[in-house]
Order: sequence, then structure tokens, then C-alpha cells
Amino acid sequence: MGKKRILFLKAVAYSDLNPTIRSYLCQYKDNNTELEVRSLDTGPKHLEYQYYQAIAGNGILKEVLRAEKDGFDAVIISCFDDPFLYPAREISRNIVVTAPGEASMHLAAVLGNQFSVIVGRDKWIPQMKENVHRYGLLSKLASFRSLGMGVLEFHENEEETVRRMKREIRAAIETDRAEVIILGCSMQFGFYEELQKEFHVPVIDSMVAGLKHTEYLLEMKEKAGWSFSRRGLYERPPEDEMKEWKIEPYGLGTP
Amino acid sequence: MGKKRILFLKAVAYSDLNPTIRSYLCQYKDNNTELEVRSLDTGPKHLEYQYYQAIAGNGILKEVLRAEKDGFDAVIISCFDDPFLYPAREISRNIVVTAPGEASMHLAAVLGNQFSVIVGRDKWIPQMKENVHRYGLLSKLASFRSLGMGVLEFHENEEETVRRMKREIRAAIETDRAEVIILGCSMQFGFYEELQKEFHVPVIDSMVAGLKHTEYLLEMKEKAGWSFSRRGLYERPPEDEMKEWKIEPYGLGTP
Amino acid sequence: MGKKRILFLKAVAYSDLNPTIRSYLCQYKDNNTELEVRSLDTGPKHLEYQYYQAIAGNGILKEVLRAEKDGFDAVIISCFDDPFLYPAREISRNIVVTAPGEASMHLAAVLGNQFSVIVGRDKWIPQMKENVHRYGLLSKLASFRSLGMGVLEFHENEEETVRRMKREIRAAIETDRAEVIILGCSMQFGFYEELQKEFHVPVIDSMVAGLKHTEYLLEMKEKAGWSFSRRGLYERPPEDEMKEWKIEPYGLGTP
Amino acid sequence: MGKKRILFLKAVAYSDLNPTIRSYLCQYKDNNTELEVRSLDTGPKHLEYQYYQAIAGNGILKEVLRAEKDGFDAVIISCFDDPFLYPAREISRNIVVTAPGEASMHLAAVLGNQFSVIVGRDKWIPQMKENVHRYGLLSKLASFRSLGMGVLEFHENEEETVRRMKREIRAAIETDRAEVIILGCSMQFGFYEELQKEFHVPVIDSMVAGLKHTEYLLEMKEKAGWSFSRRGLYERPPEDEMKEWKIEPYGLGTP
Amino acid sequence: MGKKRILFLKAVAYSDLNPTIRSYLCQYKDNNTELEVRSLDTGPKHLEYQYYQAIAGNGILKEVLRAEKDGFDAVIISCFDDPFLYPAREISRNIVVTAPGEASMHLAAVLGNQFSVIVGRDKWIPQMKENVHRYGLLSKLASFRSLGMGVLEFHENEEETVRRMKREIRAAIETDRAEVIILGCSMQFGFYEELQKEFHVPVIDSMVAGLKHTEYLLEMKEKAGWSFSRRGLYERPPEDEMKEWKIEPYGLGTP
Amino acid sequence: MGKKRILFLKAVAYSDLNPTIRSYLCQYKDNNTELEVRSLDTGPKHLEYQYYQAIAGNGILKEVLRAEKDGFDAVIISCFDDPFLYPAREISRNIVVTAPGEASMHLAAVLGNQFSVIVGRDKWIPQMKENVHRYGLLSKLASFRSLGMGVLEFHENEEETVRRMKREIRAAIETDRAEVIILGCSMQFGFYEELQKEFHVPVIDSMVAGLKHTEYLLEMKEKAGWSFSRRGLYERPPEDEMKEWKIEPYGLGTP
Repeated sequence: MGKKRILFLKAVAYSDLNPTIRSYLCQYKDNNTELEVRSLDTGPKHLEYQYYQAIAGNGILKEVLRAEKDGFDAVIISCFDDPFLYPAREISRNIVVTAPGEASMHLAAVLGNQFSVIVGRDKWIPQMKENVHRYGLLSKLASFRSLGMGVLEFHENEEETVRRMKREIRAAIETDRAEVIILGCSMQFGFYEELQKEFHVPVIDSMVAGLKHTEYLLEMKEKAGWSFSRRGLYERPPEDEMKEWKIEPYGLGTP
Repeated sequence: MGKKRILFLKAVAYSDLNPTIRSYLCQYKDNNTELEVRSLDTGPKHLEYQYYQAIAGNGILKEVLRAEKDGFDAVIISCFDDPFLYPAREISRNIVVTAPGEASMHLAAVLGNQFSVIVGRDKWIPQMKENVHRYGLLSKLASFRSLGMGVLEFHENEEETVRRMKREIRAAIETDRAEVIILGCSMQFGFYEELQKEFHVPVIDSMVAGLKHTEYLLEMKEKAGWSFSRRGLYERPPEDEMKEWKIEPYGLGTP
Repeated sequence: MGKKRILFLKAVAYSDLNPTIRSYLCQYKDNNTELEVRSLDTGPKHLEYQYYQAIAGNGILKEVLRAEKDGFDAVIISCFDDPFLYPAREISRNIVVTAPGEASMHLAAVLGNQFSVIVGRDKWIPQMKENVHRYGLLSKLASFRSLGMGVLEFHENEEETVRRMKREIRAAIETDRAEVIILGCSMQFGFYEELQKEFHVPVIDSMVAGLKHTEYLLEMKEKAGWSFSRRGLYERPPEDEMKEWKIEPYGLGTP
Repeated sequence: MGKKRILFLKAVAYSDLNPTIRSYLCQYKDNNTELEVRSLDTGPKHLEYQYYQAIAGNGILKEVLRAEKDGFDAVIISCFDDPFLYPAREISRNIVVTAPGEASMHLAAVLGNQFSVIVGRDKWIPQMKENVHRYGLLSKLASFRSLGMGVLEFHENEEETVRRMKREIRAAIETDRAEVIILGCSMQFGFYEELQKEFHVPVIDSMVAGLKHTEYLLEMKEKAGWSFSRRGLYERPPEDEMKEWKIEPYGLGTP
Repeated sequence: MGKKRILFLKAVAYSDLNPTIRSYLCQYKDNNTELEVRSLDTGPKHLEYQYYQAIAGNGILKEVLRAEKDGFDAVIISCFDDPFLYPAREISRNIVVTAPGEASMHLAAVLGNQFSVIVGRDKWIPQMKENVHRYGLLSKLASFRSLGMGVLEFHENEEETVRRMKREIRAAIETDRAEVIILGCSMQFGFYEELQKEFHVPVIDSMVAGLKHTEYLLEMKEKAGWSFSRRGLYERPPEDEMKEWKIEPYGLGTP
Repeated sequence: MGKKRILFLKAVAYSDLNPTIRSYLCQYKDNNTELEVRSLDTGPKHLEYQYYQAIAGNGILKEVLRAEKDGFDAVIISCFDDPFLYPAREISRNIVVTAPGEASMHLAAVLGNQFSVIVGRDKWIPQMKENVHRYGLLSKLASFRSLGMGVLEFHENEEETVRRMKREIRAAIETDRAEVIILGCSMQFGFYEELQKEFHVPVIDSMVAGLKHTEYLLEMKEKAGWSFSRRGLYERPPEDEMKEWKIEPYGLGTP
């Protein structure tokens, strides 16, 4: 693969962990990948509510389009809910847009018969289940299991987080017969190795899965010209209309 | 039912037809309903693309929240794609939020065995089908049939529009065995009576269906206290967090 | 809405509670609604068995047809199993025929992500689940939960009934992630308010839901001419044939 | 198998063809089977409408119960819609109750990958499809194809009937990829051999399938004690209750 | 039925129980059935792993084809996973090929609303569930319940086996609402009567079900010419091609 | 990625095209990939029939195990039906086993809303559809479309092959609303570019997709330790048992 620039976009207005995330992901990236991590300027610090996602939408799309303008080859919209993934693919021109939820679920569906997703709170489940359906994978879903913790609490008391993860993973495996586990929040990063060692099943870290899936799609595009279909779901809006209505995407908050 | 104020929110930046729409709907409203029609200030004039919907999001939510502040009892987010219906229900406090797609499909599912949705262009179908699934009604869907026309063309040459509608409705009934027809765009308003007369099956005008479903839900709320569940899908975000992050909903663009 | 006469038909041979039911429902009805409550003359006193429903069929259809003859605008076949709802719609001419199960489920599907139905006994579940499928709403069903009580026991020891209801509703919410509760028997009327207060989710009383849904459909019919499609499921049998075979509906037990 | 008495119950008030049907079926029956054919005394002559089925219900159940009293080992409720099959199983004590639709579909599901059902009129399809779901076999259904003829017309001009059957069977095979054909009306009896010869796929005559499936179930019952489960769907109502309410099944119209 | 020769093929390299199995089955067979029991010459002694099944494939097909050559009318591939059932049907010429899983599930689907399958180990479930789907019966499946025992352990300590069976059957009935139980391994033969007596629901012994279903299909073939469709799933490969490639089926290991 | 040795195993006894295939795939492989192409020694030359697949099983598994012994990091079982993919994963120890069908479908599900698979003959469809279900992707399937040609004919008259491909792809896009096309046979290699250019949608060449997906999974394994779960579907059989039964996998035909 030729050199590729990938933007890892934290879809929240929270950048403290960006350097940590970058170092973490650099352990996994391909040699030809140049990785940058950005977050949103303003907005919510997590996306546990549909409203938070909704108001993050403009920021996310702006950053995707800015990334395309800045010459990135791909952008990963990082939040396990994959917010605005489809509109971002629709409006961008060439940049490969991906997201950790989609990447993790397709991977999990290959690695075993069915997977469970460990979420923070029950609140997340209806929307995530809709996503599983959207990706076509409902019949591979063993269960959702929830930790009873918000996103921002995962790294507060990591010991407690791990304790709860182990309890729910055990139940997912023994009761729901999950064969693969997905950590259903990008902020659950860094835990997977220990869990994998303990349970002897693949435990997917969605940030890592998102990155590798992106490199894979970039390869596909470079080598075989396969990228998002422009019929139907990702048909792009006509430029003229957008110009006339003053909603040209690359005018949107370009720096 | 006591007096009720309902806002019909055209989820686009296009207000020329607002008085027409208001008159049209006033034929159908309950005596106790006071109806206002508003549109967005800026943004796209139709929502045929996911990107258009995405960037209309802030405006839609702002108007829903403004409506609540202005004392409306309900707001109808009018576009057959029901954009941002779920976040709007989640974030608002008491106002009843509805949309024409959801209203039309549940009605159609009661009036016959299966329904077809007449859309403008094939492009709309993937997202709408996702909505049918979201509302739980996939097994009542006979088909989507498309006119090959954009939203803004419906009223350009109404004769041609009707000609195509008839062709597709006939095929939906005879080939797909639809028993009920939904006109799958709020801008197809005004056509249903003629079509209904010709085909002798219910032809649902989604604007009218949206209005009446809203009055019905208002009744339910007033009489039995039934409104949107606050567990799960519509659990409201915590005020403190929003204040801290400066995303309090009622600060959002209030006039 | 103009004056409307609605018959609430208890689909059993048990009339002791009819005045109570009438008073109860009158709290919920529209001002323009005139409400009458009737039951069957002979037959079973509850419909927990398919056989009981089967032999109540003639009585139910006779009463629906009599109601039409008597000038009612609508008839509600009251039993949560909605017995003979489809044949009644098929054979009647103009009267709007409804039932509490269908009404409650479509309402519940709008008020939250998924609903649980609280039934009396496990025995009821296979048939009710078939109904959920028939209405197209299987994917909105969180669970059935059963009280272990027959219909006629609900009002024998109301304290015990409520105790069990609370236990099952709690489990439905916490274990099955129900966001809306339906009391799956019309004889569970009168309990919903207390339960709703305790659990902070909508608890649907199916008799009330049936009544309000009927008024809603009557409105639709009056204002937009939308009523049951006469193609397919509700295509009416030919008069001549019925006359020849001596099964004309309006000859059936007219008083 | 020991001697077995089977009643073939034409679920309509039409007995002219009973001797023909008996001779026809006698070619297929087991040596140990004694076969009788009865029809209803009064009621409709075909069951194309849900209303017709509904009012035939009492007669059907009465005949099933009479058959049990008369010492029959099994009764086949003959109409491809399998009317009142479940209540008849629920209320009877020991007699094996079967029906041609259920028998044909389970057989077809074994003989090939998917089957099409040739019906008389589109009108029949919604209810039959519900039955396919009820039997759990929706994913084996290739299509319904309709002849555009009522039940009573099949034997009026048999040449025309066969012509249409061939047209629809060809389309089912070539377009819908059906591998097995079911003639979806017991009155299509006698046609299957010619069709089978022409198309080289199994063409199921539902009357024959119903008879053989019954003998099979009788064998199972005799040899292994396997009969309808009395938990759930076929749990029998309590005798006392029925006595008290004067709806004892064996009092119902016994001759 | 005329005389019929049926081969009961234990799809494993284990013949010690063959006489026992033959005696056991002879209690259930039709008078006109001549029954032989064979096993494979070499290979695994049970088929709990997909690999074991895979390497048993040649032996199974060889025996099916040998049976056809030897003049058998039918062959039952006995293992609840129904290994190589479809290829065996495809390649054989006239012999009726059946298997206990398919037979048991279609029977169970008729005897009650939903069934549970009692398996030895969780390991078996993914593949069996795939089979339930393949037969079109997923919606009739209440649950799989596992004994935590391998195939070869069932008859080691029968008391313990029965104890666990009872525990899981009870849970299947009470928790999963199963109405029919299938013992999901042919080596669970001989237990069903005791279990059936205790739980008052049909408990299907898959070996017996396989035998009786085979006789039923033979009847159908003899009387009505209904056998496996040769379009699609069971279309037979061309002889010439097989000859040219030296893979003629009847050359394969003929004795 | 470190150096990786991948075996591309043509799952048929036909090696003439192996050098061509190797050159073709070398255009797509990663620099660190060493690629070898092998076929089976004996058996069928194509796998259009289930019987052909069945008898190729031993050869396929032997080659997978030999590849593991020979130090390959991965093996691609090349035939779009993915024959014996699951047993091969189950029995092998460390080698990554993949197949073109699985790879292509997960890719297609990401690139657009729904995909169509272009097959050679209708005969292939039932089994392939079962595979789509097995991978969990049925809801992403727009249609199968068949060319009416056997595998060995694709390269006989390439002009005719392309003509038919275009006809079916056009229909898939316009009638079935496919957004992505999969060429559903590895022998359709080499055609995708021209087709992609003409139709402006991704046209997946399954051999290329298989190769790239393999490299992707190898990356995952190397970087994050994610490989096939050993619980359930891919739980490995116990060595002792296999030794005792003389079916040790690495004894099977080692060279």
C-alpha cells in the first residue's frame, strides 16, 4: 500500500486523550499509515444521547469535509454509534469514511458464530440494535450486556470497570453463548488484551478494529477501485443545488 | 379535548407554501386545534439526501425546542423521512413530537394487509426502508414504487405527476398486492382524493395523517397520561451535564 | 368530529360489569361520542381458550352486524385477543370495527422502543404472539409476562393482582428492557394509573386504548375518507351468493 | 397400523362431490384405513371469505366433536385454509385433527428448497400467508400465484383451469424458482398428476396430502404415543367451567 | 404399502449397538418394512465436531449409494445433525434419503406451538440452529438446552443422563415455554417414554421419528409419485461429466 | 505486516489455470505476501453440485492441513460456495482459513445498501442463499441473478459471458436496486474492471476479495491477536480421541 493519511476523528468535544489515543493506535497501524487524531471544537463530550449525537452532526460533517480538503485518504468517525457515517459517505467526494461499530461487527461476524456487545448503559441499546440491523447482522448478535456506567466513568476506576466487564463477558459467553465479544464504546480502549487472555475468545477493541478496517478499505480502493457505491444510499447531492442553497459542503466551516 | 396548539414544522428552508399548507390542513384539523406552520430559516429546500437532513438537524431541533418554549402542545416534523424525530422526542420536555412517516405507516398497517409507499426517487428507498424497520412494520410493507421525480417537481406539472402516480399505484396494487397506498412525501399533498376515488383503496396523504395522529396522541396524553416513555430510547439527558457543556437545549438559538 | 355512536361489545356472555365499564370509559370518551356497552347473550364468560373464542364467533358477528343495523358508527370487539376482528371488518358495510389488542400495540410501538404484554396465563401467549405478528409488530415485542391468573380472578383479590402485576412489570422493564407496558386483557381495566405512577413508563389499559383508537379512526374516515381497504383482506363477499346460500349477514339473528 | 377410522370433513355445506371425493381418496388410503366423507349441513358452499369461515366454525367444531363421539380416530378438516384447526385440536379429547394446508406445506418443505402455492384468487393470499407463518414455514415459501378463479369454477371448464394452472406453475418455477408446487385449494383435486408429468416437480394435491399425513400421525400416536401437546396452544378448557356455562362440547348439536 | 426395505445407517464407525438399535426400531416399524442397520467401516465414532462430519462424508455417501445399489427403498442417515443429507439426495437416483433431525423437527412443529431441542453440549448448537433455519422452522424453535455431556456418555450412567434431561426439559417447558421436546441426538434413544410420562408433553426420539417419517415418504412416493424435486437443490449432476472425471457415484467403493 | 505465506487453494482437481491465477492475484497482493496456488489432486473440476463439494471435502481438508504443516500463515479455499470453510477452521491449529464468498459478502455489505450476486446457474442459488444466511447478511441481499452458464463455460466465449453479465447486472441494478455487484464464482475472475467501468458501482471479483480479506485477517491476528474464536463453532476436537480413532488430521495424506 502506498502512503496513506488517516484522520481519527473523536466525534466529541474532548481532546485531552488525543495524544494517548494516537500513541495507542500507532502500535497497530500499518507502516504506510500516517495517523492524526482530532476532536470537535465544541459540543458534547460524549454521545450517550441521541440529542448529543444530533447536535454533534454539523461538527462531524465539517471535520470529515475538512479532512478531505486537507488531503486525508480516510477518516474514522470514532464513536461506537457511528454517528453520521452514512451522510458523511454520501457528501464526501473521495475520502474513505469509516466507523468503529461497523468495522467491529463485520469482523466479529467472521471470527465466530455470534457476538455480544458490552455497552455502558441500557440507554444505548435501542440505537445500537438499530445499527446492527442496518449493517445486516442482527442474526449474528447474541446479546447486549451493560456495565451500568457512563462513557466518562470507564477510566475513573479502571479496576471496577474491569470487574464489571468480566462479569458481563462471562455471562455473555456462558448464558448467551457469545463466541466473540465487542467492547461497545471506543472509550473502552486498552482493556481488550487482559480480557482476551482471561476468556480465550476474541475481544474486539473498536478503535483498533476501526483503524485496521480503514486500512483494509484503502487497500481495496487502491488495488481494485472498490469504494462506496454511488447508487442509492451514497448517491451524492448535486453541486448546483447546494451552491444555490448556500450549503456547499466545502464552504461549511473550512478553516 | 381541550384547546391544543400544534406546530406544523416544514423541516426545510422553504416557506412559500406555508399558507397553502395551513389552509389545506385546516380542513382536517379538530375544532380545538390551533395550527401554525413554520419552516426553517436556512438550509436545504428539500431533504432527498442524507446530508441535507443532517445539516437540517440543528434547525429542526431548535424549532422543536422553540415550539415547546412558545407553549405549543405538539410539533409535527414534516418530511416523510421523519428526520430527527427520535432525538427531538428525547430532548424535549413535554411537547408531543410526531412525524408523518410514522403516523402514515401505523395507520396503513391497520387499514389493510400491506401497504406500498410511492416515493419520488429510488434514492430515498434505503433510508425509508430503515424507517419501516425502525417502526417495526417491515412485514406490512408490500413495496416501494418510485415516480422518478424529485420533491420540487411534484407541483411543477401536476398532470404528469398524477399520471405517474397512477401508473405506480396500479402496479403496487396489481403486482405487489398493496391494499393501502401511502404517498411517501409530504409534498405529494393534495393528490390523495383523486387517487383514492380511482383506485378504491385508501391513499394516505402523509401531512393529513401526521396532523390527525398528533391530535390522537394529544388526546391520549390528556386523558390517560400516555406519552413517550422516558426509559431507554427517549431517556432525557441530564440538565447539569448539558449546562456544563454549554449545550442546554433551550439556549440553542432561542429568538 | 360530528356526533358518533360507538358500541363497546364485551365479546363474552357476561354483562354484570357493563355499567361499570360504561362509567369507566365515559371518563375517556370524546364529547361527541355516545357510548353503549353490550355483551353476548349466550356463550362463554371469558375467552382464554381458542374453543371459547370459536363458539363466540357467531355471537360476535351477529352483534357487529346488529350494531351496524342499529346505526352505530363503530363497534369495538372487546377482548385483548381481538376475536373475529378481520371477518367482522370484511362482512360489515360501513361501520368501523376495532379491537383493543390492535389499538394498544400500535400505540405502544409509538410510545417507546419495545413493549411487554402482561397476560393472565401462559396459555394465552401463542395466540397473542400470532396476533403481534399479524399486526406486523413482532420486532417491537420485548416479552410476554404472565401473572398466573385467569381472567375472572383479576378482580377477586385486587391487592394480589396488583402485587403480581408489579412483579412482572418490574421484570419486563429491568430484564426484558420493555419501555412500554400493555395490560394484555381488557379485564385488567382500572389498574393502569397506579402502575404508571410507580414505574414511570406508559402502562396501556387496552379498553381505553381501544376506545380512543376508534374515535381516531372515525375522525379519519369522516375527514379524509380513509377506512378499511376493500381489496384483499377485507374484500366483502358478494351479496347474491350469500342470499342464495341463506347466510345473508343482516338476516343473522337480527332482533 | 391397526384399523383406523378417518373422517374426511368437507368444511362446507356442499355434499354433491362427496362420493367422488371418497372414491378419489380411496385410491390413496392405507389398507387399514376406513374412510368416510361428510360435509356441513348448512352454511356456505366455499370458504373464500373470512366471514364464510367464521360462520362455518360452529358446524366444523360440531362435526369434529361428533366424529370423536362416533369413534373416529381422526378427522381431516378439509379446506386449504385449515379453518378452526387449532380450536378443534384444543377442544377434542383424543381424536387426531388435521388439515390439508398444514400437511401439504410440511411435505413440500421436505421435498425441495421452496414451494409455491397456486391459489384461486388474490383474495385468499393474506390469510394463507398468515397460515404459512403460523406453521413456521415462511422462509420456504417461494410465492403465491393466483388463477383468477373462484373455488366453484375449477371444475366448470377444466381445460381452462388446467391452462391457467400451467401458466402459473411455469411462472412459479421459472421466475420464483419454486421447486415444489402446492395446489392451494382442496377443490383443485385430481389435477396434480398431469401437472406433475409436465413440469417434473412434485405437485401436491392437498386432499391426498391431508389424508396421508393423518395416517402418519395416527401411526405415531399408536406406536410412540406422540400426539398434540396439551401445554399451551392445545391446553384443553376445564370441563366444569364448560358445564356451568352450558357450552359442553359434546352437547353441541349431537345428533 | 408394498414391502419396503429401509437401511438405517449409523453415520459413524461404531457398530456395537447396531443389533440393539435394530431391535429397538423393530418395535416401531410398519409390518411391510424390512429394516437393516449398518454403520461406517472407518472414521469417527461420533459426530460432535464439524471436522468429524466432514471426514465421514465419503463413507456416508458411499453407503447411501451402496444401499441404492443393494435395492433398498430408503436410507436414513442417522445422526441428529443430518450430515450430508442434501448431497445424498442430490446424487442418488431413486432411493428415498431421510434423516432424524429433519423428521423430528417437522413433526414437533405440528404437535405444538414451539419445541426445544435437548443437546449434549453447547458446541452442537450453532450448526443445529443452522439446520433449523435450513428446514425453515426457526420461528418454531423455543430453545436449545444442553446436558453438558458428550454423545458417548449418554449410556454410561443412564441415571445421571436422565437426571440432567429432566432438569433441562423442565426448564425448557417452564422457562422457554416449549410445548414439545426433541431429544437432539440419536444416541438419546430409549429415554423418551419415561420423560414423556413425567412431563405430559410429546418427547420425540429422533431415531423413531426418522424411521416413521421415512415410511411416510415412501408411502407418498408409491401412492402419489411425490418425491424429492429434481429442480434446484436436488438437481442431479450429469453422468457424462462424472464418468469423465472418474467420480461416478456407483463406482465409489462398491463392494 | 511481517512476511506472510498464503496458499490459494483451488478447491477442484483442475490446475491448468493455476499460473494464470497466480499472476492475476499477484497484481493485488501485499508486498509482504508470498502467494502459492495449488489445486486438488483428484476429484471434480468444478463444484456446481453439492455432491461434488461433498467428495472434494477430504481433499480440501487434507490440503488445508498440509498447508498448515508446510508453514503457511493462511489458506484461501477458493470456490464461491466456501466449501468446508467451517470444518477447516475448526480442525486447523493456527493457520487462518478464509474463503471468497464470505470475504466478498462482508465487503459488499459495507460498500452499499444491498448487493446482488451473479451466479452461473439457478442450481447454485439455494446453497448460496443458505451461506448468505450463515454469514448473517440476508437482509443485505438484493437478489441472485443467473447467467445460464456453467463454471467451465465462462472463459469459453468471453464475449458472450460479458454480454450476459451486463444484462443481468443491469437488471440487478435497475430492477432489484442492487448497489454493489458480486461475481458469484471465482472463475468469473478478470471481468470485474470492465463491468465496474460500465455500471459505476463496485463489482466484486471474489478471488481478489478473498485474498485481501485474508491479508486483513492476518494483520488483525498479528497486531491484536484476533483470530477465530475457539468457543462453539470452531472448538477444536480433542487430540486423544482423534488419535484413538486414527483420524488425526496431520496424518491425513501428509506428503
